[in-house]
Amino acid sequence: MNKKLKMGMVGGGIGSFIGDVHRKAAGIDGMISLVCGAFSSSEEKSITSAEAIGISKNRAYGSFEKMIKEEAKLPEDERMDFVAIVTPNHMHFPPAKMALEHGFHVICDKPMTLTLEEAVELEKIIAASGKVFALTHNYTGYPMVKQAKAMIAKGDLGTIRKINVQYLQGWLSTALEKTDHKQAAWRVDPKRSGIGGALGDIGTHAENLVEYITGTQITELAADLSAFGEGRTLDDDGNVLLRFANGAKGIMTFSQIATGEENNLGVKIYGTKGSIEWYQENPNELVVRWLDQPKQVFTPGGNGGYPESSDYVRIPAGHPEGYLEGFATIYRSFAKELLLTKEKQPSAQHDFPTAKDGVRGMKFVYAAVESSQNNARWIKM
Amino acid sequence: MNKKLKMGMVGGGIGSFIGDVHRKAAGIDGMISLVCGAFSSSEEKSITSAEAIGISKNRAYGSFEKMIKEEAKLPEDERMDFVAIVTPNHMHFPPAKMALEHGFHVICDKPMTLTLEEAVELEKIIAASGKVFALTHNYTGYPMVKQAKAMIAKGDLGTIRKINVQYLQGWLSTALEKTDHKQAAWRVDPKRSGIGGALGDIGTHAENLVEYITGTQITELAADLSAFGEGRTLDDDGNVLLRFANGAKGIMTFSQIATGEENNLGVKIYGTKGSIEWYQENPNELVVRWLDQPKQVFTPGGNGGYPESSDYVRIPAGHPEGYLEGFATIYRSFAKELLLTKEKQPSAQHDFPTAKDGVRGMKFVYAAVESSQNNARWIKM
Amino acid sequence: MNKKLKMGMVGGGIGSFIGDVHRKAAGIDGMISLVCGAFSSSEEKSITSAEAIGISKNRAYGSFEKMIKEEAKLPEDERMDFVAIVTPNHMHFPPAKMALEHGFHVICDKPMTLTLEEAVELEKIIAASGKVFALTHNYTGYPMVKQAKAMIAKGDLGTIRKINVQYLQGWLSTALEKTDHKQAAWRVDPKRSGIGGALGDIGTHAENLVEYITGTQITELAADLSAFGEGRTLDDDGNVLLRFANGAKGIMTFSQIATGEENNLGVKIYGTKGSIEWYQENPNELVVRWLDQPKQVFTPGGNGGYPESSDYVRIPAGHPEGYLEGFATIYRSFAKELLLTKEKQPSAQHDFPTAKDGVRGMKFVYAAVESSQNNARWIKM
Amino acid sequence: MNKKLKMGMVGGGIGSFIGDVHRKAAGIDGMISLVCGAFSSSEEKSITSAEAIGISKNRAYGSFEKMIKEEAKLPEDERMDFVAIVTPNHMHFPPAKMALEHGFHVICDKPMTLTLEEAVELEKIIAASGKVFALTHNYTGYPMVKQAKAMIAKGDLGTIRKINVQYLQGWLSTALEKTDHKQAAWRVDPKRSGIGGALGDIGTHAENLVEYITGTQITELAADLSAFGEGRTLDDDGNVLLRFANGAKGIMTFSQIATGEENNLGVKIYGTKGSIEWYQENPNELVVRWLDQPKQVFTPGGNGGYPESSDYVRIPAGHPEGYLEGFATIYRSFAKELLLTKEKQPSAQHDFPTAKDGVRGMKFVYAAVESSQNNARWIKM
Repeated sequence: MNKKLKMGMVGGGIGSFIGDVHRKAAGIDGMISLVCGAFSSSEEKSITSAEAIGISKNRAYGSFEKMIKEEAKLPEDERMDFVAIVTPNHMHFPPAKMALEHGFHVICDKPMTLTLEEAVELEKIIAASGKVFALTHNYTGYPMVKQAKAMIAKGDLGTIRKINVQYLQGWLSTALEKTDHKQAAWRVDPKRSGIGGALGDIGTHAENLVEYITGTQITELAADLSAFGEGRTLDDDGNVLLRFANGAKGIMTFSQIATGEENNLGVKIYGTKGSIEWYQENPNELVVRWLDQPKQVFTPGGNGGYPESSDYVRIPAGHPEGYLEGFATIYRSFAKELLLTKEKQPSAQHDFPTAKDGVRGMKFVYAAVESSQNNARWIKM
Repeated sequence: MNKKLKMGMVGGGIGSFIGDVHRKAAGIDGMISLVCGAFSSSEEKSITSAEAIGISKNRAYGSFEKMIKEEAKLPEDERMDFVAIVTPNHMHFPPAKMALEHGFHVICDKPMTLTLEEAVELEKIIAASGKVFALTHNYTGYPMVKQAKAMIAKGDLGTIRKINVQYLQGWLSTALEKTDHKQAAWRVDPKRSGIGGALGDIGTHAENLVEYITGTQITELAADLSAFGEGRTLDDDGNVLLRFANGAKGIMTFSQIATGEENNLGVKIYGTKGSIEWYQENPNELVVRWLDQPKQVFTPGGNGGYPESSDYVRIPAGHPEGYLEGFATIYRSFAKELLLTKEKQPSAQHDFPTAKDGVRGMKFVYAAVESSQNNARWIKM
Repeated sequence: MNKKLKMGMVGGGIGSFIGDVHRKAAGIDGMISLVCGAFSSSEEKSITSAEAIGISKNRAYGSFEKMIKEEAKLPEDERMDFVAIVTPNHMHFPPAKMALEHGFHVICDKPMTLTLEEAVELEKIIAASGKVFALTHNYTGYPMVKQAKAMIAKGDLGTIRKINVQYLQGWLSTALEKTDHKQAAWRVDPKRSGIGGALGDIGTHAENLVEYITGTQITELAADLSAFGEGRTLDDDGNVLLRFANGAKGIMTFSQIATGEENNLGVKIYGTKGSIEWYQENPNELVVRWLDQPKQVFTPGGNGGYPESSDYVRIPAGHPEGYLEGFATIYRSFAKELLLTKEKQPSAQHDFPTAKDGVRGMKFVYAAVESSQNNARWIKM
Repeated sequence: MNKKLKMGMVGGGIGSFIGDVHRKAAGIDGMISLVCGAFSSSEEKSITSAEAIGISKNRAYGSFEKMIKEEAKLPEDERMDFVAIVTPNHMHFPPAKMALEHGFHVICDKPMTLTLEEAVELEKIIAASGKVFALTHNYTGYPMVKQAKAMIAKGDLGTIRKINVQYLQGWLSTALEKTDHKQAAWRVDPKRSGIGGALGDIGTHAENLVEYITGTQITELAADLSAFGEGRTLDDDGNVLLRFANGAKGIMTFSQIATGEENNLGVKIYGTKGSIEWYQENPNELVVRWLDQPKQVFTPGGNGGYPESSDYVRIPAGHPEGYLEGFATIYRSFAKELLLTKEKQPSAQHDFPTAKDGVRGMKFVYAAVESSQNNARWIKM
């Protein structure tokens, strides 16, 4: 019998957006079972969440420290296999470090840590631990993102010369943080978010997405960050010039004050032979333009898709998959790798974001802030 | 502790499209756990599937009869709560009847049965059983479908006058049934599909969708069915004139030989004050046109949505939900109703398709076939 | 010096929608000059229009009879070359007949005539006259329509099996004819429109478009026409089953009570190898789906277009052409043919709708009305 | 009789893209008649063009100097009223200056001149002449652009905070200038184009469009220009950070090496209450997002449009207008103003781009080049 991997969760009590997303995403493919959680720093609230979620209240803890210690004492076939960290940014490093040091694998929300220093340290801890670590840059889980990546890797688009990326949201257009809105509150608070606002929250997704798809890296950037919301100390909007290792140039724009936008992450990438365009809000279409052929539209599992993409499609073409499925793909690849590790087999190089991506993300945040503080001076990454 | 409902499955062995969809859909909201299955008529294959899926091989059965009998003997807190039937059409009625008669609730794929007679009989059996029965007309689970339904129910669009629906697929454009393609094979076989081909497979979805959204019913129809594929005895394409109880007129077109189409179910419904347009392949947009205001586009959880829609949204606006989530909504509503029944509480009228929809669907199939056999004569439904 | 062809207009005084369209369309390519007009049955109003338009008041007439007689007396290099008829339907036949019989070529708005009898007679008169006659089924002038036609003619899509067409407008959703709205008034008046309402006005466009693109013809139809507007005697909505000479089946839906729709003419045509989809409101995209390749999107003058299409493109790809340009293409092809006739050269078979299309359109109207009066019985065309 | 304004053309012989555009655009509204031209620097070629176009060969000149001198000698009701300049950039200033000084009005293609100095001088010459001067920044002629401008001017979108603009073409992705392609040749040649390549050709359109729509101005910019094409000395791609007078921030990206793009000019502008999105390739849709209402889509002449937009619509909603009509709107407004001037009436402030826009455009080009030469340092405009 193919037993499910056992997940413990840090954060993500009932009412949390991202905690629920992680639970649903972990559940879709039937490989993972949530068995315990430190859902809140209040044990009582943690138990309430556990009951609502449907797990035993004996496995609800009031702190991640307690969860890790107690679970470590349980028999191997009972205790959790890995920890999912879904807290605000300042609470990523501590539980990740402790879990790894107690022999647990870790899957963590992004950005990886509060500071670049933490990110660098965590990467070392992970390497030393021999455990599997995944970072939920979930947008890389979409089949059409994988199709774009495969097309570029195979040279279909020729040499990449222009890379534009946008991540536009409008939910902080008003002073939501001054209402009773928990997510807004910590997002605008440097103590919990770090030195980046929208930059850390969504800019890192944009950075990760273009580096993932193109296979090249940002070498330097010039960023003009703004805090339009009154009283905000962290950026809620940014425009960035980009230069890439392969000679490409690009531009990034991100915002949480782009009124009326919901979650409009999109990329346009131009090569010498062709180009791609993709938007997260309509994720099942990949537009490909060619030098001398009509424009094409690829779909998940549809005609002409590469195995690198179609292997990640769960249902036939025309049956749209969404955000949760893309997120689930990260969980599934992490789970497959974890199973190999558990069985002491060699890695199959399953495709999911790792500590390396996490460090890149934090370097990006630090470079952009430094640039912006210097009136958009070029900063190397 | 909020224990999960226990599901047993009939059909849906590894490699089945719809079995996997049911499993994933049942799993998303964390309310249901698959505990047993008669995944195949071969016990050996059933066990193989059970192992791949990750359930105990003791609970893998070689027939639905055996599953129902054996499970009924288990202690109440161990045995399955309900049966999910995911077999071809001819195998819907027998397991549904037996399960209900042994005290199990049932969720069944559509169309409800092989024949109209079976559908009428099953409706009676369900009523007599006091059990919960759901039919997976999954497209009614999409939030934007529920938004459309709510807008019409509230009178926002005025009196409905015109109802157009299409369901276009191309997967049977070639003679796929002559290759080693299981799904194509039973779809074109009257013994397993019944008297409707594309009509029963997707026409019933179209019929169900427009009746669900508009709240009115088809009273008569004139159908021109075709079997374009060489040697096919069942229709693979159809065009239908529709008249509705409220005076509206309409048109339906469905096809499985619409080359290049993936799963293009769409509706356009026109009232005296406004109209709606929705497509399943891009399910997170509902276009609403008005008599004297600019066109609007509603999104799940977005501005202006009614609670009747937004209550069914799992993640914030802009984070697309897809086919599995819509399907999961049917499972979740069924599960909620089942829990009430288990706890002997009154029904909360949770919104999911039932036997009534199943009988309508079979009446539609029979009326369309009779009409088409009489050169598209009007047939009352 | 390449002198411009001289146009006389019947109807189309200032304030007329379609008269202005004809003038602008005739003007775009610089081959035609408006020199005279019977813009109104009031000579005074006709002069007012002439002055506003910028032509000599000496060439403004109070009746088409007078215009034709007076112009015929002018020297050849001064008098009009052809008549453009832009009046309501009941005033198409009389001026067309008289103009042809006085040696003038004719371009006429659709439907060709008030009655089928007139259409048949006019076709004979045209043939006998040796003059050029064009019917402004303007939608055939769009480059992407021509691309679709060429692809089908070349067999790119294989055998055509399914033909769906819609023409949806909402401007008669309310009782506009009871306000001071001239166009609505004559459109709902059988004396001026004929036996078809929306059927004649836009249904004929839909019929013409699918026969033009596919090269096959409707052989029989079953129509369910409705007059939703209170007190209307002519249809304002219709749904039609179609059967074609080549074995294809299809469906047509048209409406002028489709609330919120502007001018939504669209076709979906499916062959054994591929299919096309095109909408007039976004005329510069032709979606082509294939059996085994990704969906393509063709654009006017863009990659992969056939000369049969790109020859009709005025400006580079990405510079949208619209309704007036499509209309102008009819005028230009008519003008080229007319020049050949003038110079007594053989026809170059320039591509524009003729009397044959006009007779088809009237037959369609008559068949649909007869079918609808017989409860959607099949009527041969 | 309302006589047509008489146009003389400099450049634009047969085969020229933009000359033909100007002719068609000038012709659509029936207010302007082409009477003469210096279509080529070869008198013979100029005559050939004149004949093909259909104007008298007596009015075909071998140089703009000759045209201006000869026409000036003609009687007032015979000679041209204004000059349309459609030559490469280096040939804008000389004919414009001479025409103005000889009493002719001028309409000129963009960018206004070869150099900023010329632009500043030309602005002075125009002011001194009392003649009407229009610059064909044609994209401001689209009704949906005017709707966007009106909505912002009325405060519907609140305070503008974020302004993104793109202008993406792919036609110079390959070394087209090394083939026999006249337009490519002069576009990459600093002697004929000036110091900006794509920057001057399309970047100025982007700059003009956002300043037109928003009513605010770029105050400083940081530009990263590239010449990807081998051997090119002028930019063929650029990314620019923008800061605006009203405090808004923005980003511009333009390219002529964006493979597969046709003419993808688009803007996204975000205010505190709402935002707009518009694309030139689909110009008849204006998407408006709101803080707390569903997204709307405005159409020319459609529901909810302001007179500031609908006054510029020629045909009913749903009948798409395109590039030529937008261009024609510039011509029409210029013509109306010219008529007032001719009749010595006060200006009605008709809305078309003028020398002021031309100077802004050249300042933008100079600032961007200076910035890019200084590694994207901020330059004030």
